[in-house]
Order: sequence, then structure tokens, then C-alpha cells
Amino acid sequence: MAQVLVTTVPFAAYNRIPTELLESANVPYLINPRGKKLKEQQLIEMIGETEVLIAGTEPISAAVMDAAPNLRLISRVGIGLDNVDLLAARNREIAVSFTPEAPAPAVAELTVGLMLSLLRGIHTANLGLHQGDWHRYMGRRIPEVTIGLIGVGRVGQRVLRRLASFGSPRVLVNDLNPIPNLVPELKIEWVGKEQIYSQSDVISLHVPLTPATRNLIQAEQLAIMNSEALLINTSRGGIVDETDLYEALVHGGLGGAAVDVFTIEPYSGPLARLNRCLLTCHMGSMSQDCRSRMEIEATEEAIRFLNGNELSRPVPESEYLIQQG
Amino acid sequence: MAQVLVTTVPFAAYNRIPTELLESANVPYLINPRGKKLKEQQLIEMIGETEVLIAGTEPISAAVMDAAPNLRLISRVGIGLDNVDLLAARNREIAVSFTPEAPAPAVAELTVGLMLSLLRGIHTANLGLHQGDWHRYMGRRIPEVTIGLIGVGRVGQRVLRRLASFGSPRVLVNDLNPIPNLVPELKIEWVGKEQIYSQSDVISLHVPLTPATRNLIQAEQLAIMNSEALLINTSRGGIVDETDLYEALVHGGLGGAAVDVFTIEPYSGPLARLNRCLLTCHMGSMSQDCRSRMEIEATEEAIRFLNGNELSRPVPESEYLIQQG
Repeated sequence: MAQVLVTTVPFAAYNRIPTELLESANVPYLINPRGKKLKEQQLIEMIGETEVLIAGTEPISAAVMDAAPNLRLISRVGIGLDNVDLLAARNREIAVSFTPEAPAPAVAELTVGLMLSLLRGIHTANLGLHQGDWHRYMGRRIPEVTIGLIGVGRVGQRVLRRLASFGSPRVLVNDLNPIPNLVPELKIEWVGKEQIYSQSDVISLHVPLTPATRNLIQAEQLAIMNSEALLINTSRGGIVDETDLYEALVHGGLGGAAVDVFTIEPYSGPLARLNRCLLTCHMGSMSQDCRSRMEIEATEEAIRFLNGNELSRPVPESEYLIQQG
Repeated sequence: MAQVLVTTVPFAAYNRIPTELLESANVPYLINPRGKKLKEQQLIEMIGETEVLIAGTEPISAAVMDAAPNLRLISRVGIGLDNVDLLAARNREIAVSFTPEAPAPAVAELTVGLMLSLLRGIHTANLGLHQGDWHRYMGRRIPEVTIGLIGVGRVGQRVLRRLASFGSPRVLVNDLNPIPNLVPELKIEWVGKEQIYSQSDVISLHVPLTPATRNLIQAEQLAIMNSEALLINTSRGGIVDETDLYEALVHGGLGGAAVDVFTIEPYSGPLARLNRCLLTCHMGSMSQDCRSRMEIEATEEAIRFLNGNELSRPVPESEYLIQQG
């Protein structure tokens, strides 16, 4: 029986170190044989005698934990904790760790890539030419536009530092914790979320999914955005209401959108019918270096725990308080 | 009869200043009524009594000039001169000016956007999801790869400065004129073109189309690139052999490509059948600010000339020498 269950996939696909670490430590492990994100019931059927779960974004609910009497650690590969019922874990004395730093550079880079595609019509030109249609899109450059970020933590700050090299856009930011002298090269205005919605040409979201951010962007917020505004979500599905976004794009309330994360993944919904909507497949952290680092950190944490050592990256108390509401 | 013929389109579409300048100067003008790039014969039929041509990338050949007995200035909106027979112009005492600085920031930004799309599979994920197929691509980040630039003039240098904000990739460059201390933040290696082809993960071309660069990248060069390499051409059609590129992509000789410029535009060829080939529609300079600046500079040059004043941006002697071969 596997002591460690790895549910996140791909795992050790581009870098064998994570499985080599488990093998060197003589830890029996099983990698999710379905090869894709598990549903709750599938995980319940698979988890059995698992002591440590090296986890992705599948639902790790109280019911899952009840099906795993030996579970002692959930080691998340990544930063988001919206899929882990932290309070249920605490009640069952299951520790939870994560890898908050590792994904940030890759997510920031994808965000800038999506932003440049939206601003210059790269995705629409490409779809058009692949359908035999040549249309030259007139775009806007980064220093020409007002960029609004909701959330300027690990990812948001990295996005801003990269944007600064393209010139000096007007930058509006909002975060629970204002940070002085955030990116010295940029003139940054700390504003309310409404001002970001109403004044930005590009709005990018870099917040976790919590009770406070669920459905943050719905019809009401979309309605105050300007009709040419571009919306980017590389944070989590559930933060933007997908039906409302579809309506805004169809009825001219928004210039375009880039969506990497969805309420239900894999995504197959109506946004895929809109050429103005740039869609990627939850690929924020999917760069070889960041993905390797995330997997190695989460695996090292599992081995550290199994050896009776202290965790390096336990989920902090603040995350439990967020779920407590 | 129009004294000024504007063949480049769109013109003054996003910023009315260029036409306002012509109107304030009481200069009769005509904007290309066909609304797209002219073929040689179409231009011959349209040029008539024109004294100043505010020109795009249409062929401005000796035959065109012979059809325009009053032509005295070709004012190019943009930097490329491959479409202008400079020696024929000189023989007929027709001056030629251009706008070499204005497009560079927009071309550099598009190039970085294309590079991020290629490296992260943004375009392939987007095409897939729009066809109902969810596939998560594992990408590479800029600091993980070796980037090779052929040509580090106005555009290439700007590309490098933007890339530096993403981390420190290994950078290989080649140019006729080596420049010391090119981008101080980056460790740059000046190498031969062959080393760029054989060692780069991403190869981007930033050279003009001249007799020396025509078909620069053919089967022979593609064959020495590594099978995961990514090729970007935002410079000019004709520099990359499109048939050879198609073959390399189909037969696994290359990881992907992004092509913005084509031998014949509008493009409708076999590259459009390949999802791994990211295609845009000669949109390098198509940002509102750069396009406006190009149009304004070319229009001011036309008015300056018609008023008997000296040109600000005459094409330098070196460009004539290049065409002389």
C-alpha cells in the first residue's frame, strides 16, 4: 500500500527529482493513475491508507479525510488552499503545508503574455488566420494604458516589475495590505476596487479564492468597466462569474478577456465560442522550472514529515482564519 | 487632383492629426480608396499627378515612378525600404524619407508577446479550448532558455531590455555592427549566426530585408536548430523561406514558430494549417501610439517638403548602398 498518494498531475514528468527523492527515502508512493484532476468521489475511492497526500487542486473535503483514517499531512503543490477544508483538517489533526513562493514567477510571466496578446490582438489575429481570414488589429502598448491590479502579493508585484520594462503605464492597485514603495520604477496609485473597475484599460486579478473574493467580478462590476476594457484572471476560478463575463463580452460591455482558471476544470463552456476570449488551461504555474520547484518542495515536505521533522512551509494561521470567515 | 497620395492604410483612423495637418496646410490629398495594400499595377493606375506619396509597403518600382511624372517625394510610413526602388528614385530625382524610430517600441512589444505565447503554449491552448479540447501545456520561462537575436538595432535592443525584467536568460546576438555594453543588465554573447541557430531555444529576427538577408532562414539553417527551438519573425517576409519553415514544423525539426510578416500579404498559405505556428497579420507597428507617430512624422515630412524645407528624416546613403549590392 502506498504511504504517499500523489494526486497532482503531471508529476515528475519533466524532472525526475521528486520521484527520486521518494525512492531514496524508501517511501512507497502512487501517482494518480487517472492522469487528470480528480473529482471528490474519485479521490475518496483512491485515498485509502494514504498517510501523506501530495495534492493538486482537487477537492480535499471532510468526506475525503473521513475516507483516509491514516492521513496525517496534506502537502499542497502550489499556493491556493480553496480546495482544502483547512478546519476539517485541523479537527482531524491533519497538518497542511504548501509551496507559496514557487509558482509566482511562472504565473506572473503567463499574465504578462496574456496581457500582450489581449492588447495587440495576437489571439484574434491567430484564430482569424487559421480560419483563412486576414485582419490587422490596431492595438495599444502597455505604456499607453491604465493597468489595474486587484491583489499585489507575490504574483501581482512580479507582474508590475515586468511591466515597468515596457514603459510607464498608469497603474492602479488594490490590496488588503498596502505596501509602501511597491515597485519604485512605477508611479502606483492605491485606490478602491470601484476605481480600478471604472478607470482601467486592463484589469488583472491576483487574489486567492476565499469567501471574500468568490464572485468578486459579476455583472455589477463588469457594468462599470469601460467597453474596451480587458479582464485577466490567472488566479482562481470562481472569482469571476463566467456567465456574467460571457454576457458582457457578447453584449459589448467589455473589450476582451483572458481566462486561465475556471469554476469547473477542464473547462468546456460558452466562453470557448468567443474569439475575443483568450483561454488557457490552468497553466499559470506550468513552466518546467516552477513546476519542478513546486513538486520538489512539496515532496521534501512529505519526507521531512514522515521522518518526524518539523515542516518548512506549514500553512499559516491566517489561512485558517480566512476559512473560518 | 490630389497633390498627396496616401497609400498606407489604415491612415488617420485612430488619430486624426495626420489629415488635420494636411488640411491645415491646404494640401489636397487622397487616401487609398481600396483600403488595403496595393499591388504594383493598382498603384500605377492610381498614382497619376501625385507629387508626394505617403507610402506603406506596396511595391514602389521604377514602373510606378514612370507612371508618376510629378512625383518628387516618397515619404515612407515605417522603416523598411525593401519595397522602394531607391536607385530608380535617385535616377528620377525623387527624394525618399522614412520614420525609422517610431515603429520600434511597438514591434519590440509584439515580439515579446509572441515569445511568451510560444514559450507557454498560450496560442495552442487557446486554439484547443476553442475547439473543445483541454490540454495543459508545460512551458518554459524566459530566464530558463537561451535566446538568440539576429539583428540588435532599434527593435532588437528594445526586445532585450524588456526580456531583462523577466530574469536573466542566456542571450546570443549577431549583428553587422557589434555594440559594446548593449544591455548592461544582461550577459550578452556576440556569436556567429550558426551558433545562434544551433544553441538557441528561441530565435528572433530583427534585420531589414536586403539582398543579404533574403532567404536567410532556409532548410539548411532550420536543420541545425534544435527540434524544440522556437522561431520568431516580426521583421519582413522573405527573410524566412515559408515552405522550408512549414516542412520543418511538420516533420518535427522545430518546436514552433511565430510569423507576423510574409512574402505575400495578406497571407493565406499552409502555415495556417499548423496549430504550432502562431500567425499575426503584419501587426508589428500596429499600436495606436506608434502608428500615430509614424503617420504624423511621414505627413510632417510631406508638408515640410512641399513648403520647400529640408527633410528631417531622409533615407541615409547607406540604404542606397545596400540596394546597390
